[in-house]
Amino acid sequence: MGILIKDITAILPQGAKTCSVYIEDDKISSISSVPEGFIADKTFYGAGKILIPGLANAHTHAAMTIFRNCADDLIFNDWLFGKIMPLEDKLTGSDCYWGVLLANMEMLRSGTTSYIDMYYYTDDSARAVLESGIRCVFSRGIAGDASVATEKLRNALDEIERWKGHDNLSFMLGPHAPYTCDEGFQRETAQEASARNIPINTHLSESLAEIDTIMEQYGCSPIELAEKTGLLSNTTVAAHCVHLSDRDIEILAEHRVNVVTNPVSNLKLANGVAPVLKLLSAGVNVALGTDGAASNNSLNMFRDLSLLTLIHKGINHDPLAITAIEGLRIATNNGALAMGYENLGEIKPGNIADLAIIDANAPNMQPSSDPIAALSYSANGSEVETVIVGGKILMENREMLTIDSERVIYEVNKVCERIGTK
Amino acid sequence: MGILIKDITAILPQGAKTCSVYIEDDKISSISSVPEGFIADKTFYGAGKILIPGLANAHTHAAMTIFRNCADDLIFNDWLFGKIMPLEDKLTGSDCYWGVLLANMEMLRSGTTSYIDMYYYTDDSARAVLESGIRCVFSRGIAGDASVATEKLRNALDEIERWKGHDNLSFMLGPHAPYTCDEGFQRETAQEASARNIPINTHLSESLAEIDTIMEQYGCSPIELAEKTGLLSNTTVAAHCVHLSDRDIEILAEHRVNVVTNPVSNLKLANGVAPVLKLLSAGVNVALGTDGAASNNSLNMFRDLSLLTLIHKGINHDPLAITAIEGLRIATNNGALAMGYENLGEIKPGNIADLAIIDANAPNMQPSSDPIAALSYSANGSEVETVIVGGKILMENREMLTIDSERVIYEVNKVCERIGTK
Repeated sequence: MGILIKDITAILPQGAKTCSVYIEDDKISSISSVPEGFIADKTFYGAGKILIPGLANAHTHAAMTIFRNCADDLIFNDWLFGKIMPLEDKLTGSDCYWGVLLANMEMLRSGTTSYIDMYYYTDDSARAVLESGIRCVFSRGIAGDASVATEKLRNALDEIERWKGHDNLSFMLGPHAPYTCDEGFQRETAQEASARNIPINTHLSESLAEIDTIMEQYGCSPIELAEKTGLLSNTTVAAHCVHLSDRDIEILAEHRVNVVTNPVSNLKLANGVAPVLKLLSAGVNVALGTDGAASNNSLNMFRDLSLLTLIHKGINHDPLAITAIEGLRIATNNGALAMGYENLGEIKPGNIADLAIIDANAPNMQPSSDPIAALSYSANGSEVETVIVGGKILMENREMLTIDSERVIYEVNKVCERIGTK
Repeated sequence: MGILIKDITAILPQGAKTCSVYIEDDKISSISSVPEGFIADKTFYGAGKILIPGLANAHTHAAMTIFRNCADDLIFNDWLFGKIMPLEDKLTGSDCYWGVLLANMEMLRSGTTSYIDMYYYTDDSARAVLESGIRCVFSRGIAGDASVATEKLRNALDEIERWKGHDNLSFMLGPHAPYTCDEGFQRETAQEASARNIPINTHLSESLAEIDTIMEQYGCSPIELAEKTGLLSNTTVAAHCVHLSDRDIEILAEHRVNVVTNPVSNLKLANGVAPVLKLLSAGVNVALGTDGAASNNSLNMFRDLSLLTLIHKGINHDPLAITAIEGLRIATNNGALAMGYENLGEIKPGNIADLAIIDANAPNMQPSSDPIAALSYSANGSEVETVIVGGKILMENREMLTIDSERVIYEVNKVCERIGTK
C-alpha cells in the first residue's frame, strides 16, 4: 500500500521542514521526491498539520489501565502492596486483554505508536496488541527467589517462542525489580538472557525505600547489585533510576543501559526526580515512559514530554536544560533505540513508518511560530489526528480503525465492577 | 433563560454526586429539586459526563498568546528583556484584541471560565472579553518610578471608570513587579487602591535575580518591600511567590494576600517551585494560574492542575501532598476567592453559573472509578465539551458560540508575520 502525506511540516532529524512523505508497505520510502512507480492508495493533505515520528512509550504496564483512578493519594508501599497487588490477584487474562486494548486506544489517540510493556498474561496482551496494530515490546513480569527462577524463565521463554514472528510484537525478559527478584533469580535470568540474546526490561532504583532495602540486604545499591548479577551485561532497559549515586551512573553508562525516565509517575508516587541531565552527560540513552495508569494516571506521552522538559529546567535552575527538540528526541528516537530498533523513531527514508499527524490549527498550538516548541511545550495530545504504525493506518481523523472503543470501555468497566474498584 | 443539566456526576463542595443542576438567568438556582416555575429552554443530558465549576485561571497575560512558541529555551532576563519586551513594543491595541480572543478561545475550550489578566490596551482587551463572554478581572500593567505614578494611575483609573458595569468584567490595579515599580510608585499605587477599595494584582518573588535586586536596592525581600509600601494592605493578588523566607510567608498570611502559583511557568523559566505546602499550612489562599503563553506555553489549566498535584508530592516526598480534591479546589474555589467573588467556584444554589461539562467517556478518563482523580490526574483539557459562564452557553459540544475561531487564528498569525515571529 502506498501512502502519500503531502506538503506537511515534518519533524525531520535536521529540524522542521515542509515536505511530502511517501510510504510504501511498512517503510518510509522517500521524502520529497516521488519514488519510482509509486501509487498513492491514500493521500493525506498536510496544510496546517505537523508530522512526527510516533512517540515511543518506553515503560508502561498497559493492562493496568484497569486500575486507573482507583488507588490515588497513597504512600508507595500502601499503593503497591496494599492496593495494587491484591487487585492484581483478582485479574484474569481476559481482563488484561480488555485493559491492554484500552491502553492501546489511549496511546494511539495521543500519538504513541510503540511501547515497552511489562505485565502478566502474555497471550492475552499479545492478542490485544496484534488486533490493535500498535508496536509493542512485551516483557512478562517475573519475580521470586532462585528456587523458582528456572520454572518462571521456562514459562516466559515458551511464551516468547509461541508469539514470535510478528513485525509489531517483540519480547524482552522482565525480572520485575531488585526488591522482588533476589540475587539468584537475577543471576539465572541474566544467564538465560545472555545465552539467548534476549534483552532485559526491569525496574531499578525507583524509591528510597528500595535503595534502603537493597543496601541492607546486599550492602550495595540496586544498580551495583544488577551489575554484579549480570543483569546489565547484555541489552538492558531500566525504568525509573530516580535515586542514583555517581558510581551508579558510571555503571549505567559503561553497560550502555537504556534508562527510561517516568517523570509523572515518579512525582505522583513521591519518589522524586531522576538525574536525567547527569545521565545524558554521561552518555546514557535516556528514553521516556508513562509508567502504568495506576501511577500516572494517563498514558499520554505528551504530558510526560512536557513535564520532562519543564522539570529539569526548574529543578536545575537551567532554562536551557532539555530543550524542545531534545525532549522530542528523547520521546521518539531514544525510545526506539531502547526498544532495539535502529530504523525507527526518525522520519527518514528506509525507516519504519510509525508516524502521527498532528493538528497544528488547534488554538493551543497557534500562532504557528515554532512547531517543535508547540509539540514539546503546548500540545496536550488531543491534537493527534491520524496514526500510522508499520505503514498501516490505525487512526484516521480521530477515528479508531482497529479498536471498537465503546466495547472496550464497556468491558473494562465490567471488570472494575467485578473486582470492586467502581 | 433556564438550563437543565440532567443526571450528571457533579463535583459538589461535599464531593462527587449524581444529580440535576438547574440554572436560571446567571445563577445555579437549585440542585436536584426542580425550582418553582422552572422552564428548561435548554437541556444537557449528563450520562457519561462530569460537571465541574469552571476553572479559575488566577494569573495570565491573555494577549501574550501572540508570543506563544517564539521565545523558548532562554534564560529569564534574555527572555523578558531581550525578547518579550522588544516584541511588546511592536504591539498595537488591535493586535491585543486578537491575542485576547485567541486566549479566551483556548481557555474556554479547556474549561476555564474566568481569569485574572495583567496587560496593556485595556479597551481592546475589554472588548474581546465582552465579545467572548468569559469572566475576566483585568489589571492594566503599570510600572515606573514615583515621577510617573500619578499619571499612570489616573489613566488606569479612567479605564476602569470607562468599562465598569459589566457582570463578567471587573478590575484591579496592576503594579507590575518590585523590579519595575520603585518604592514611591508602589506607595502611591497602594494609597490609590486603598482609597478607592480597588484590589491590587502584582508579581512578587518570581526569580532569584529579583530577590537579589530588591535585597541590594532596599535591604529587604520583595514581600517585605511590598508590605512596607502598603501594597499588601488592602486586597492583593500576588503571582508566583516562588522564593519566600519564613517571614515572607508570615507577612502573606497576616495580610491575607491571595497567592497565585504558576507551576508550569516557574519550571519553564527555571525559577523553581513555590513553597505551596508551607503557604497552605500558614492559611494563605493559594490559587492557580497558567501565566502567559510566552512562558507556559499553554493556557490549559488542566495542565497546571496536574502539575500542581504532582510536583509538590514529588519534591516533598509526600504522596499525600495536594490530593486530587485539594488540587481541584485550588483551581476553582481558591481562584474565585482571589478574584473577589464569594458566590463562584463551587456548584451550589445561589452561586454564579460558571460551569464546564466534561466528557468522562474519553479513553484517558476510563474506567470511571473516581471522577475527581480523573479530573486532577488524567484529564488533559480536551475532554471539555460545553462551557457556561454567568448562565450563558459559550461553547456547546466543542463548538465555540461567541468566537470565530478561524478568523482569530488568521488574524493572530498576521500579527506574528508583521512583528517577525513567524
